[in-house]
Amino acid sequence: MEHTYRLVISCPDGVGIVAKVSNFLSTYNGWITEASHHSDTHSGWFFMRHEIKANSIPFGLEQFRAAFAPIAREFNMNWRITDSAQPKKVVLMCSKESHCVADLLHRWQSKELNVEIVAVVSNHDDLRRMVEWHDIPYHHVPVSKDNREEAFAHIEDLFEQYQVDVVVLARYMQVLPPELCAKYAGKVINIHHSFLPSFAGARPYHQAYSRGVKLIGATCHYVTQDLDEGPIIEQSVIRITHRDTTDDMVRLGKDVEKSVLARGLRSHIEDRVITHENKTVVFD
Amino acid sequence: MEHTYRLVISCPDGVGIVAKVSNFLSTYNGWITEASHHSDTHSGWFFMRHEIKANSIPFGLEQFRAAFAPIAREFNMNWRITDSAQPKKVVLMCSKESHCVADLLHRWQSKELNVEIVAVVSNHDDLRRMVEWHDIPYHHVPVSKDNREEAFAHIEDLFEQYQVDVVVLARYMQVLPPELCAKYAGKVINIHHSFLPSFAGARPYHQAYSRGVKLIGATCHYVTQDLDEGPIIEQSVIRITHRDTTDDMVRLGKDVEKSVLARGLRSHIEDRVITHENKTVVFD
Amino acid sequence: MEHTYRLVISCPDGVGIVAKVSNFLSTYNGWITEASHHSDTHSGWFFMRHEIKANSIPFGLEQFRAAFAPIAREFNMNWRITDSAQPKKVVLMCSKESHCVADLLHRWQSKELNVEIVAVVSNHDDLRRMVEWHDIPYHHVPVSKDNREEAFAHIEDLFEQYQVDVVVLARYMQVLPPELCAKYAGKVINIHHSFLPSFAGARPYHQAYSRGVKLIGATCHYVTQDLDEGPIIEQSVIRITHRDTTDDMVRLGKDVEKSVLARGLRSHIEDRVITHENKTVVFD
Amino acid sequence: MEHTYRLVISCPDGVGIVAKVSNFLSTYNGWITEASHHSDTHSGWFFMRHEIKANSIPFGLEQFRAAFAPIAREFNMNWRITDSAQPKKVVLMCSKESHCVADLLHRWQSKELNVEIVAVVSNHDDLRRMVEWHDIPYHHVPVSKDNREEAFAHIEDLFEQYQVDVVVLARYMQVLPPELCAKYAGKVINIHHSFLPSFAGARPYHQAYSRGVKLIGATCHYVTQDLDEGPIIEQSVIRITHRDTTDDMVRLGKDVEKSVLARGLRSHIEDRVITHENKTVVFD
Repeated sequence: MEHTYRLVISCPDGVGIVAKVSNFLSTYNGWITEASHHSDTHSGWFFMRHEIKANSIPFGLEQFRAAFAPIAREFNMNWRITDSAQPKKVVLMCSKESHCVADLLHRWQSKELNVEIVAVVSNHDDLRRMVEWHDIPYHHVPVSKDNREEAFAHIEDLFEQYQVDVVVLARYMQVLPPELCAKYAGKVINIHHSFLPSFAGARPYHQAYSRGVKLIGATCHYVTQDLDEGPIIEQSVIRITHRDTTDDMVRLGKDVEKSVLARGLRSHIEDRVITHENKTVVFD
Repeated sequence: MEHTYRLVISCPDGVGIVAKVSNFLSTYNGWITEASHHSDTHSGWFFMRHEIKANSIPFGLEQFRAAFAPIAREFNMNWRITDSAQPKKVVLMCSKESHCVADLLHRWQSKELNVEIVAVVSNHDDLRRMVEWHDIPYHHVPVSKDNREEAFAHIEDLFEQYQVDVVVLARYMQVLPPELCAKYAGKVINIHHSFLPSFAGARPYHQAYSRGVKLIGATCHYVTQDLDEGPIIEQSVIRITHRDTTDDMVRLGKDVEKSVLARGLRSHIEDRVITHENKTVVFD
Repeated sequence: MEHTYRLVISCPDGVGIVAKVSNFLSTYNGWITEASHHSDTHSGWFFMRHEIKANSIPFGLEQFRAAFAPIAREFNMNWRITDSAQPKKVVLMCSKESHCVADLLHRWQSKELNVEIVAVVSNHDDLRRMVEWHDIPYHHVPVSKDNREEAFAHIEDLFEQYQVDVVVLARYMQVLPPELCAKYAGKVINIHHSFLPSFAGARPYHQAYSRGVKLIGATCHYVTQDLDEGPIIEQSVIRITHRDTTDDMVRLGKDVEKSVLARGLRSHIEDRVITHENKTVVFD
Repeated sequence: MEHTYRLVISCPDGVGIVAKVSNFLSTYNGWITEASHHSDTHSGWFFMRHEIKANSIPFGLEQFRAAFAPIAREFNMNWRITDSAQPKKVVLMCSKESHCVADLLHRWQSKELNVEIVAVVSNHDDLRRMVEWHDIPYHHVPVSKDNREEAFAHIEDLFEQYQVDVVVLARYMQVLPPELCAKYAGKVINIHHSFLPSFAGARPYHQAYSRGVKLIGATCHYVTQDLDEGPIIEQSVIRITHRDTTDDMVRLGKDVEKSVLARGLRSHIEDRVITHENKTVVFD
């Protein structure tokens, strides 16, 4: 994989932004391998992502940041630049269901996902053997009505200890406390096993069965304090028929959940996702 | 198209139903061209559809009905037998949007849809020229707050006058009165421009835009007194991105609406749909 | 629809192209509503499309062309700028099958497709009534072994007379002569009723049936002198089963053909397609 | 999972087959949980599959076979009856690519796939650790130009030793010898990484890249002596764009390959697939 920098920008739309940014890059001889723009006429907001060959520009990230800061100020940009050679630190959280964790671990092991999985945290001990076989630490943090507060305090400690960049709720069946959601806003990704906003909340496949829908789906979204209401990164569906029981839906749904989560996570770790007003721009 | 009879059955599940029915057909030398069964273990209900070459059995529908009645009684069947040579009488209802009406008219004209479109009823006059070009009567029945009752009385008269078998709400933007829904239960098909149960009610594409979903869809369902809550016959979705405005969604959605409605209607008129407890069995 | 100019560029890749172009636009205060870039590392080629508000720049297309020419020369660009307010002139060609023509005519009539359909040319007279109802001239040009040369000379005359920008083969069942393909290279769009390169040539649904595939498809591509080998613009597929006969495939395939052709044509007329080495870049 | 028997039949079509079979089942009080029929009018052949609760009939498979034999003879049936409680013995074959093997192992371990994976055979040693972690024997049988004959003699011995019911080529990059294909006809399942018949043979993603297709796919099929020409069980595709390199296609294709192979294998092991004239009937 090529070593690149990713310059990600959102700001109020206006004339001259692209020119200013591309001039900046061109001045330093930056070789752009990928450029994506989006003008949202509804919100009047502008979004932009560049991927630049790292060795084409004559300095590192710190100097880049310093040199670019005046432009960022001029256009009131929210912006970041990241380095593809510094894989993000990921903590996976799970419960008893293994399909999403097994899928992500395999993608990581086969070098498809360019992340560092620093730990797995679970409220159950079931997946320990699978995780430890991958030489990844497994933290069993049971959560009950009585210990919720201390359990999540412990989990928050783990996040800090591991200096986590991304938390992936890979079918983790507990609701994170609002403060944790706020603290890690934009960094916690969940897979919900329905095509949101249909069937938010518990047992979505049972809800889908009762309603008699002909497609079921999964949704990868950022976690916010409003359960199942965060910005959607990726969704997909699969066709079902009257022959499918809820057990069949659970089984069929797993394949959708795995692939939707993997695609959503990939977009996130490659800095392809920008959130704005509870929605996402995804530069695929 | 081959001339067939369609025997459609639903009843409490049990041993011996298939044997009894197939024996009956075999005794009269009935040549089965298509047979579909479904045992719903959740509800304990059994569903069955046979398509039989009409000229393989030695009598017509009336005699068939008389001969089959004892079996139907024995197993407490809901059942019907229909004749593929008697196309169903269809009334289309529309407002200003033309895409679904144009699509169905073309499928009918090119003999893809084996129905008799007896009339089009609309609360606007916009599509008159298109409909009349197809030599189909066009009834403009404006509906307002003040005339709702008499308008729908008129529409009900039209249904009776045309001896309608199926009413298709092809983006008809008025809500049918509950009594009309009840009277024509199982005979009125609607296309809703969202992937129900998401975005029921008005302006679903605007709702979808606000929520930031990554797929939009359409739902073909039977109309009941509970708006957008009737048994779902068919659904489909299409992928969208952050670049798509509500106008884009409206445009892209039209293609999904057309094809979902056409597929759902086709299943209905070929007697492939059986409803049970607000859900459908669709024997495709 | 907003009045825009579309600047479409392809050239050998290199540093500074984006900067030069965006500077140019920014200098003249051009408001970019959409920008798409693609660096093809395999061929070392660069592709770029900008959509610019027409009233944001202080001059028209001719002056734009003059002002931009030096930049184009510097980077050896293939380029064009087009005006969204000048809809392309389209000739549809068809035979007996009506579905693609009916679909395109309805999209045009309902203002979904921003083109001017100047004529329909067919080797049969079947679709005359449908076309003329839309107030579009219908030219019946029979083609046989004996008259091919003069028939296509006549057709070429018609193309010139109508100053056609785009020719759409909407299930036209004759092969265009190589010279005509060459003369109108990049301007003739065909819909082939298979998922190319599978089942090129005649009767693709029969080929698909014999092979027992589980999906059938359609391909929208530019016509070149090599039959069914031109650059692919758009493709899609639909699932079939063992129950589907070739007649079913023909029917199901029509829906795929219609939508694939409409999407491909839309991309073309909005100047979103750039061809390079028998492949396309499609900036959707 | 319910304990069932699966009665799978194909025979020349005719009147009375269904009646005879359902009578037989009904006489012995057989509770049918699933019944599927298909009349192929093109070939004049009839296909039928019943799933029957094992404990609803008063005898075991041997007696069933004896009792049913006269009916089978009368209608010239190809038929089998299998027992869901006797999972099929599966040998996986692979090379260096891990995604299909990892996927199938996880489905097996999580009890989604009701099979007994008795061994993995590979021409490389790369996946040994992954396989052995699942407590499954791993046989490294290198294959080269010089040792092909003895290598496949060894593999054939392994098949016999393990009394294999199904061989799955999970991205096994060697071609099986014709005699082995013939001996295990209908028992060897392959996943080909293209949407056959497009891009048969080697490096299909590179072929797809060169042709510039807009969808790539995978095909699960029975292996015959004609490479990539066997009966197709399942296929699927995924959309790609001009931005996707062959590396991207390889990565995206893996997800399609995994799910297509898993679905195809599932259909096979549940005795849902009947082959006839190089095509399949799949009773999903």
